[in-house]
Amino acid sequence: MESNSVSPMPELAPIAEFDKTPPTPPEDTIPMDDLPPPPTVVTVANNSVEQEAETHRHYEEENEWGCGSWLEYTMVVVLASVLLLGSLALTLFWVIYYHNGFAWREDLSKQFNLHPVLMVAGFITFSGFSILLYRICRCCRRIYVKLLHTVFHALSIPCVAIGFMAVLDTHNLKRPEAIPNFYSLHSWIGLVTMGLFAIQFVVGFFSFLVLLCCEGATSAFRAALVPIHASFGLTTFMLAIAACVTGLTEKVIFTLGENYEKFSEQSIIVNTLGIVFIALGILVSYAVRIPNLRGDSMVYMDDRM
Amino acid sequence: MESNSVSPMPELAPIAEFDKTPPTPPEDTIPMDDLPPPPTVVTVANNSVEQEAETHRHYEEENEWGCGSWLEYTMVVVLASVLLLGSLALTLFWVIYYHNGFAWREDLSKQFNLHPVLMVAGFITFSGFSILLYRICRCCRRIYVKLLHTVFHALSIPCVAIGFMAVLDTHNLKRPEAIPNFYSLHSWIGLVTMGLFAIQFVVGFFSFLVLLCCEGATSAFRAALVPIHASFGLTTFMLAIAACVTGLTEKVIFTLGENYEKFSEQSIIVNTLGIVFIALGILVSYAVRIPNLRGDSMVYMDDRM
Ligand code: HEM
Ligand code: HEM
Repeated sequence: MESNSVSPMPELAPIAEFDKTPPTPPEDTIPMDDLPPPPTVVTVANNSVEQEAETHRHYEEENEWGCGSWLEYTMVVVLASVLLLGSLALTLFWVIYYHNGFAWREDLSKQFNLHPVLMVAGFITFSGFSILLYRICRCCRRIYVKLLHTVFHALSIPCVAIGFMAVLDTHNLKRPEAIPNFYSLHSWIGLVTMGLFAIQFVVGFFSFLVLLCCEGATSAFRAALVPIHASFGLTTFMLAIAACVTGLTEKVIFTLGENYEKFSEQSIIVNTLGIVFIALGILVSYAVRIPNLRGDSMVYMDDRM
Repeated sequence: MESNSVSPMPELAPIAEFDKTPPTPPEDTIPMDDLPPPPTVVTVANNSVEQEAETHRHYEEENEWGCGSWLEYTMVVVLASVLLLGSLALTLFWVIYYHNGFAWREDLSKQFNLHPVLMVAGFITFSGFSILLYRICRCCRRIYVKLLHTVFHALSIPCVAIGFMAVLDTHNLKRPEAIPNFYSLHSWIGLVTMGLFAIQFVVGFFSFLVLLCCEGATSAFRAALVPIHASFGLTTFMLAIAACVTGLTEKVIFTLGENYEKFSEQSIIVNTLGIVFIALGILVSYAVRIPNLRGDSMVYMDDRM
């Protein structure tokens, strides 16, 4: 769902047009914005859309995708996949190598380690792939992609739940005194992320799967929901990234303190992990917007509900 | 530039369409994605664009904007403006009330305070308004909006430069030993943000202002650059937000340490400021995408270069 509804097709439409036609008169010198747009301009824009549709049909007959689109598509999808798996691997390496791995109840500091790993697994790796699915599975039946999207997000629920319980426990079971909950900016951002995720999942599940029981009657509603679901989905992903970079910053200062300044191995690894999260934020939001599926996207517009 | 080129007009176009026409056949049950899109589907999408253009012309005659769009537009712009100014005010209050205000060279800890204030002023308040301008100034001549966009961004350059020098100084002049530079995740994110900002400014300035000297010859190039400039601009803003939340987290742990847990006044204020930054990230990226300027946007497509 994310992929198609966010893709800004018209961005390229007028540009393709400009490459071929003589440039329009310099609009900047005419105070046109004060008036309602004159019909000529509307016609220009209109033509460009039509001509664009023609070019597009033409491409389909010969060659659905240009070589450039293929390259761009492959690079974005491969890089995003590598970073999605890489961020999880790096998080695992970090907590196992520098923070002694995992435990449950017996050793609170080891129990904490479950928190970053499971949060990254749920909110970054699973959710990221779930969003990317709409780009990766170009040739599958729509309903399969939708089900896979649901399965991936469903998989991230236990991760997030256990990851959240892990950190709650480390706060509540701390002795001599329990650590208060939800004191930090990180935890506030985390709460908002989890709340938005829950709303998205429940609303999406009912609207896009359960309401399929009466397809015809709900199609307008589902179509109206698609862009909202897509925007909120991307927002949730971005919030998760903000939660990750603030969480990392907290943890590295809690453990290294002043030594964070000393470019130790661990701090380089943590910073690199943070930059990977940032890169993922840029890459995923780009991936759901690239108009490289133009051959298919006309279908998707109807199909994507 | 940001505002119009990122706005995903077609998101609503097919939906408006769906609201009026009987629902399309259930695509999910047909393995259509395996085949190239059949011509009928292309025609549907095509029609919808045409009909959309007609509806649009029709609206213009009666009433350029619906009441709902006005309300949405006003709320988003007002809320964003309040938060843009509010975040700067809150940052100022925080450093003056809890960190004793400003100094230059005489007191390094007071000199540091210039860093968050000037960075927020430059990268959030000025840059944010500069992006929002394309929404706020709906009725001005395009060239004025463009110049104002440049002026606002130009104003943020001294802020960022002095803000950056302030923190460099606090590191380099620290005694008995200088603090190393660029050790933290925050500083890495900050560097990427500043680099991207510099590239954006230089490229944008030359392409959209200097190249106006030969308007006709450069119009295709400028048109091609618009969506790239817009995406990178929004990315820079998002990176600035990531820099702010990590910087805040660092600073609050450096100063409060364990006491961060205790829900002190200061920690509540810092967390709130962080949430304001997050809200701004969501709101600004939404503001540049809402298709509420549909009446104007056909003009903008040609006009925006
Ligand atoms: C999307 C991902 C994440 C979410 C939604 C999230 C959410 C949360 C929440 C809600 C808390 C508060 C628990 C409490 O107060 O009882 C918390 C605590 C914590 N998290 Fe995360 N977290 C995420 C990722 C991470 C990562 C990657 C790290 C890196 C180490 C991390 C480090 C911490 C630390 C150190 C705490 C304890 C201190 C505090 O409450 O701020 N988190 N997290
Ligand atoms: C977009 C906004 C910001 C940018 C681009 C930015 C950039 C930077 C850079 C490049 C450094 C490294 C300086 C050096 O190592 O010599 C730095 C340091 C620092 N900044 Fe920021 N900053 C921003 C906002 C903030 C904010 C809002 C705070 C909140 C207090 C903050 C707190 C700090 C702190 C505590 C340091 C010193 C510790 C360190 O190097 O990480 N920054 N900033």
